[in-house]
Amino acid sequence: MSAPAHLENDTLLRALARQPTPYTPVWLMRQAGRYLPEYNATRARAGDFLTLAKTPALATEVTLQPLERFPLDAAILFSDILTVPDAMGLGLAFAAGEGPRFARPVRDEAAIAKLAVPDPARELRYVLDAVREIRKALRGRVPLIGFSGSPYTLACYMVEGSGSSDWQTLKTMLYARPDLAHRILALNARAVTDYLNAQIEAGAQAVMIFDTWGGTLSHEGYETFSLGYTRRVIAALRKEADGYPVPCILFTKGGGQWLEAMAASGADALGLDWTTDPRSARRRVGAQVALQGNLDPMALLAPPEAVRREARKVLDAFGPGAGHVFNLGHGISQYTAPEAVAELVDEVRTYSARMRTSSGP
Amino acid sequence: MSAPAHLENDTLLRALARQPTPYTPVWLMRQAGRYLPEYNATRARAGDFLTLAKTPALATEVTLQPLERFPLDAAILFSDILTVPDAMGLGLAFAAGEGPRFARPVRDEAAIAKLAVPDPARELRYVLDAVREIRKALRGRVPLIGFSGSPYTLACYMVEGSGSSDWQTLKTMLYARPDLAHRILALNARAVTDYLNAQIEAGAQAVMIFDTWGGTLSHEGYETFSLGYTRRVIAALRKEADGYPVPCILFTKGGGQWLEAMAASGADALGLDWTTDPRSARRRVGAQVALQGNLDPMALLAPPEAVRREARKVLDAFGPGAGHVFNLGHGISQYTAPEAVAELVDEVRTYSARMRTSSGP
Repeated sequence: MSAPAHLENDTLLRALARQPTPYTPVWLMRQAGRYLPEYNATRARAGDFLTLAKTPALATEVTLQPLERFPLDAAILFSDILTVPDAMGLGLAFAAGEGPRFARPVRDEAAIAKLAVPDPARELRYVLDAVREIRKALRGRVPLIGFSGSPYTLACYMVEGSGSSDWQTLKTMLYARPDLAHRILALNARAVTDYLNAQIEAGAQAVMIFDTWGGTLSHEGYETFSLGYTRRVIAALRKEADGYPVPCILFTKGGGQWLEAMAASGADALGLDWTTDPRSARRRVGAQVALQGNLDPMALLAPPEAVRREARKVLDAFGPGAGHVFNLGHGISQYTAPEAVAELVDEVRTYSARMRTSSGP
Repeated sequence: MSAPAHLENDTLLRALARQPTPYTPVWLMRQAGRYLPEYNATRARAGDFLTLAKTPALATEVTLQPLERFPLDAAILFSDILTVPDAMGLGLAFAAGEGPRFARPVRDEAAIAKLAVPDPARELRYVLDAVREIRKALRGRVPLIGFSGSPYTLACYMVEGSGSSDWQTLKTMLYARPDLAHRILALNARAVTDYLNAQIEAGAQAVMIFDTWGGTLSHEGYETFSLGYTRRVIAALRKEADGYPVPCILFTKGGGQWLEAMAASGADALGLDWTTDPRSARRRVGAQVALQGNLDPMALLAPPEAVRREARKVLDAFGPGAGHVFNLGHGISQYTAPEAVAELVDEVRTYSARMRTSSGP
């Protein structure tokens, strides 16, 4: 792969393709978020989170904010993981200080019968407009990552109606009426496929599937209810746009026990949470996929020297070889000081460049 | 090991020693709990949870309740995992509908300097009285399991002051001031050792260490802050009482990636949560330890036939070989119907006996 002509910095795409890079590219999950005062200012102007997410000009503004502060190697579309079920008409809302909630959860045959795969060009047009506007605003500085929740993670909220510590309603369906769960998941797989392909057509240069809750399933359940459907999505994704490959990153929080199966899913890269040992992860997946991760987000609450030390530990554990994208093991905490992110990004850049000089690519 | 003369049913102890048993022994984490109407009645009489836990006669009553209903193969001491820090003077309280909360969390040098290892015979006498009273009430029907939170899990609540989704306060200490964390953990290790040894002296015939939050640490952090201290505890435990071995079970929720290290900790058995594949767990730990687990507690919310099917899947995955104790992968949900537990226990008993007949021990 030659450097996409329209990109000044293609380090992320090269690392996802497991090609050598002069340093380890870095971006952070939820890098456009509440730890940034400028984000909070934009959000206050928007009035609420959903308006922020649904207004392309504002989504563009916040997507670019972290790039103005830090030399990050990627932008990630500012959006919510629940846009797809919202487009299905489930009525997404965010109460103050609470997580997402659906007014019309999907819990029986009748509700399932009413579900339909949204047409991204219509019901999710605001996301595609945001992708186009962000690409324009980026002017080729770094690639733009699009994303979606996984079919299973969407189903978690669709059935439960909100976040949960044990997903009791959904789990009861999985054990008592797996046929109903499979109908929802099959529909979600088609919806996520269409959604991600539309993002790619609109300009996303890589995509990431967030399987935030797949790790709460049993070993067998993960294959049956999560990975099986994610695999369908990946198989049906557009593999390139404008002549350039569009890599796909799969992140299952709590999925460290299942890396071999995830690596065989067709994904180009796996996101690792902070509980997974990068050395053993690399041994287990071989050269099949790139790896992304995996600093504990809480490490950013420590003083600068500790942040830099922990960043070096992560880089050492992944090693100087090709195919590592530095990230956190989960979204950045709202209590993070922006200065800590500056320290982190600087350390990743300088230390990873030095690693390559001292030990070769 | 010959059958302890004072036990009618020593199936649990034999399985923990990886000896053949005629069927797979079964008990359930939190088996004395809110899913039982008789438990709720006793708790209502007590007035509140802490009074229930601190009154030996009431703790004895609820410990025995599940054994009256189901042919379980073990009793587990009814108590709380936070008795030790409560005995250190941190002021444990349970607000209605909330989890535990400490009035005086431990967050700085001054607070740490005031900490002392409690004398179980004094500050935790009510637990030891309960152990003695339960042993008497059991009259040798099944063994009694004693337990404690792990040094790390105790520290989670001691520093944070309550439960948490990200343990921000504690994690900040781990990264910013690991020296402070190590002082708390070293003290906790001594306190847990004394506490478990006192339970063994009072009559506990097996002990379990609940490392409920070790799984929220990084790979490296788990060794440094959790397993390292649990290992100290296990090394200093009384290995027998009245001439009989007292096995130790270690359960780290979310610890499935670290089974090899846990198996080398000196524990006789490892508890597995429901995300871990029993087949690969057995391959990884070999014959070094017995394994306990690991049905998803949510499976008990399904109808009887599904409960029985899921129980058989777990038994098949562990196989008919010696060294399996059936349990849930986490505490039983308060929304479980007692009838579902009856179905489960019956299926484990009959199916596991049949497995042995058809394929030999």
